[in-house]
This record gives sequence, C-alpha cells and structure tokens, in this order.
Amino acid sequence: MKLFNKVAIVGTGLIGGSMALEMKKRRLARQIIGVSRHKSTLIWAKKRRIIDKGSQDLSIIRDADLVVLATPVNTILKSAGIIAKLIRQDCIVTDVGSTKKEIVDKLSKIFPNYIGSHPLAGSERRGIANIDMDMFKESLCVLTPTKDTSPRALKRIKSLWAQLGARVVLLNPGTHDKILSFVSHLPHAVAFTLIDAVPDKYLRFTANGLKDTTRIASSDSRLWADIFLSNRRNMLEAIESFQGKLSRIKSAISRKDEKALIAILKRAKGKKENLR
Amino acid sequence: MKLFNKVAIVGTGLIGGSMALEMKKRRLARQIIGVSRHKSTLIWAKKRRIIDKGSQDLSIIRDADLVVLATPVNTILKSAGIIAKLIRQDCIVTDVGSTKKEIVDKLSKIFPNYIGSHPLAGSERRGIANIDMDMFKESLCVLTPTKDTSPRALKRIKSLWAQLGARVVLLNPGTHDKILSFVSHLPHAVAFTLIDAVPDKYLRFTANGLKDTTRIASSDSRLWADIFLSNRRNMLEAIESFQGKLSRIKSAISRKDEKALIAILKRAKGKKENLR
Repeated sequence: MKLFNKVAIVGTGLIGGSMALEMKKRRLARQIIGVSRHKSTLIWAKKRRIIDKGSQDLSIIRDADLVVLATPVNTILKSAGIIAKLIRQDCIVTDVGSTKKEIVDKLSKIFPNYIGSHPLAGSERRGIANIDMDMFKESLCVLTPTKDTSPRALKRIKSLWAQLGARVVLLNPGTHDKILSFVSHLPHAVAFTLIDAVPDKYLRFTANGLKDTTRIASSDSRLWADIFLSNRRNMLEAIESFQGKLSRIKSAISRKDEKALIAILKRAKGKKENLR
Repeated sequence: MKLFNKVAIVGTGLIGGSMALEMKKRRLARQIIGVSRHKSTLIWAKKRRIIDKGSQDLSIIRDADLVVLATPVNTILKSAGIIAKLIRQDCIVTDVGSTKKEIVDKLSKIFPNYIGSHPLAGSERRGIANIDMDMFKESLCVLTPTKDTSPRALKRIKSLWAQLGARVVLLNPGTHDKILSFVSHLPHAVAFTLIDAVPDKYLRFTANGLKDTTRIASSDSRLWADIFLSNRRNMLEAIESFQGKLSRIKSAISRKDEKALIAILKRAKGKKENLR
C-alpha cells in the first residue's frame, strides 16, 4: 500500500528533490507534485520522472495528503499562511528546515496535522541538480513533536523517514536548536570566519587542511544568514563557548605553556576520534 | 646520473617515509638510510625496500651527501647540534618542518650547506604506514633561502623537490611563517577549538559539516603544540584576526542585522570559491 496518495513538495531543491526521488524509487506515493520558483528546476525534475507534475503556482498543492515544506527557513515561515488556505484539514504537513523552534511555534498553530522534520543530510551544494541516490540512507532525521502534535502526523512522518532509510530521533524543538547550534550552525559560522580571516594574497598557499575546514563556507549565504538569525540565542551562546575555548588556546600559546597546550589539543583530538 | 649518493632521512614518518619512497621510485639516490626512534618503522620500511638501511642510532648518517631532517619541529632543533658533528662539511642538509624562521635561524648557523624546505603535503595521519604514492605530486613545496644560503644547496634541493613532482616556491623564512600561520596553523587551532567546544552529549548528532571542519583535529597534539609555539607571534596575530572576524558575525547576529550578515557570508563564500 502507498504511504501517501498525493505528495506536494514545496521547494524542489537538494533536500526536496532528493525526497521526491527517494519516494518515487520506493513507490511511497501515488503522485508527487513539485513547486519551485524556477521553471527550469521543474522541467528538469519532470523529465527525470522525479516528480509527476510541477508548477510555480502554489495552488497545485490542493488535495495533497502530505505537504513537505523544503524551502529556506525564512520562506517556510512566510509561505505557511498561504499554504494553510489551500490544503485540506486532514493534510499532513512537515518541513525540513534546519532550525525548529521558530518554525514549529508558528506552523503548529497554522496546521492541525503538522510535525517538524530535520534530516541531517545535504551538503554545501544546493539545487536539484546535486541530488544523490540514497541521500538519507543511514543519516539521522530529527522529528520535533510537541504535546499538541497529532499522533497520526507523527506516525506517518516517522514511517516516511524510516522508509527513506533515515534513523529517526525525537527531540523537542528547543533541544534540537540547542544541539544543532553546536554541531552544525557553529561549524558553519567558524568556516565562514576562517576563510574570511585569511588574507587574499595568501590563498594560493592553501593546503588540504584549510580546504576541508572551510568546505561548508561554500554554502549559500542567504540560507545560512536565515538559519543563524532563526537560531539566534543558541548561536550567540555557541559562539561564546567557542570564543572561550579559543582564548584558552591563545593564552597557552601566549605564555608559552606547552603542557597546557598539549593537554587542550589532546582532549580535542580524543573527542574528534570518538566522532568516527 | 643520480642526484645524490647517500641520502639519510632522519625521521621516517609520513613525510620522511614518503620522500624515501619517491626517491627510490625515481632512482634519485644510490643509497637511502633511515633513522627512526622506532625499530618497527625501520623494519617495515626496509622490508618494502623504501630504505636500504635503517638504524635507531644517528651515527649511521656519516658520509651522507644529503641529510633530510623530518622529525617534529622540536626534535629538529634539538638534534641539529649532534648531527652537525657526524656529517661532512660538504653534506647538504634540509628539513621539512612546518615552521621555518626559528629552524632556519638555528640550522643555517650550524650547517654550511643548509636550506629549509616545507612541502605542503601530508595529512592528519602520522607514520610511515600512512604513506601514499605521489605524496608530493602537484603539491607546493616552499624553500626558504636566506642571503647566506649556499647556491649549491639551493640548486640541488630545488631539483630534488621538482623531481618528486612538487611546484617549488621560494620565500624568506619570516614570510613563510606569516603565510602558514593563516593557511595552516590557524585552521588547525580552529579545528581543535571547534571540536573542544561541542558538548560531549551532542556529538552523536554530528553531521558532515562538523566532520570535515574538524578533520585536522585528529592531528598529533604534541606536533601541533610545537608548531604553534615555534610560530608563536604569527599565531597570536592570526588568532586575533580570526577573533575580530568572528566578533563581527556575532555582532550581526546579535543585532539581527540580516543585511550585514549576508554581506559577510557572501564575501567568505566568494573567497572560498576562489580556492578551488
């Protein structure tokens, strides 16, 4: 049996496009509709049978039993009201935004069958042309139910992500944003800062270390400005924590304290090695 | 014709071992001698014919016409005096240390035919077991001659690195250290700091961004403490520059200045894209 009848994906970029592709592959929906600002994206996706129908006009999502909001955080917040007027009462709605508190607060008031998702997948590249097979396989997907979340929405969206290959974890939206500020948003801020700090004339001496450390600084600027601002309070705390740790390394270098320096680096290395 | 007759590599780790391997492959030396603290390393290297002879005792380097110092920065500084007593006057000496000012200052006083090298190759892994074919191919190798450098040493070492596949660039030692503080040492300090800042209990939510950004935090702690301290003044300046840039991002987030934030991130992304 199909999990959904008509799925509408609003924002067929890297994540939205990958969801369409994986749902098609696994025959999880009878019909997949794509909405994009870009006509070329829709033509591309239709040609490859990733979506069945596409439109730049939101009204195409009428009668969907699942709507996935896969636009940048800011656009999710702005378009929710319009979308609510188009869909049926029993339509399940989820989003894939990188921050959750602000979005869940707003969307759970607007949609009766809403639950927030955040698949920890994707890359610094954007757009449907960069989608990969098995984007979600063995990745983590955080769902952020609240006490008001409809059990039906939770159950169906949990099943959806599980069938796309993700390991599903439930967190409350605030905890999600706190964690993500450290494991994702701070690393982005640091990568942007690091490349910004290197004088232009030195860039041709770049070795692999700097390349890897700043890979995610190729990420979209507007998208990440949005994320930082949407997770503002946690971001400020994460940056402060980072600043404190950097000051300690700096101070150890400044006072030539080899022992303290080695101890700090060793602890960091140990944590890094636990990541694998 | 062979470039060298007897080459002694002191410290047959990732870089020293790779040099031996590449010199063997290209038949650049009649004989390659390895010196290591670890007997197992020497046995491993001899078995694979990467070196012809190995010893834990430095006296094996007698009669070499090239000595390569490939130990950590600190050990290079400590062992130079002993090595000077063992070798011939006309022996060419180079090192592959990641900082140059302190090393060149000391070694050019001790060895009449010395020139500093720094191949921008290698990885967060250490040891001869991690050597790769063509480690130096298309990589950059900085040589740091001074006004006192013997033209013969410069010519021969330049030719050596070119034959190992590296693009050779000449910089004075101070300029080298200044540049490297930004393109290599700062990224390491930042990677160590970043992983240190992430609370342990959040580590299981790590996505690819944090993994890449902190790859080099797996680097050896003692080795990097050495490098930071040997390039102390530049490191402090590079960290300060980074701190200033991070404060600007933080301040834009704090005052919800989306426009300023996008402008900063966009500039960073532009620089990152020029790296490729």
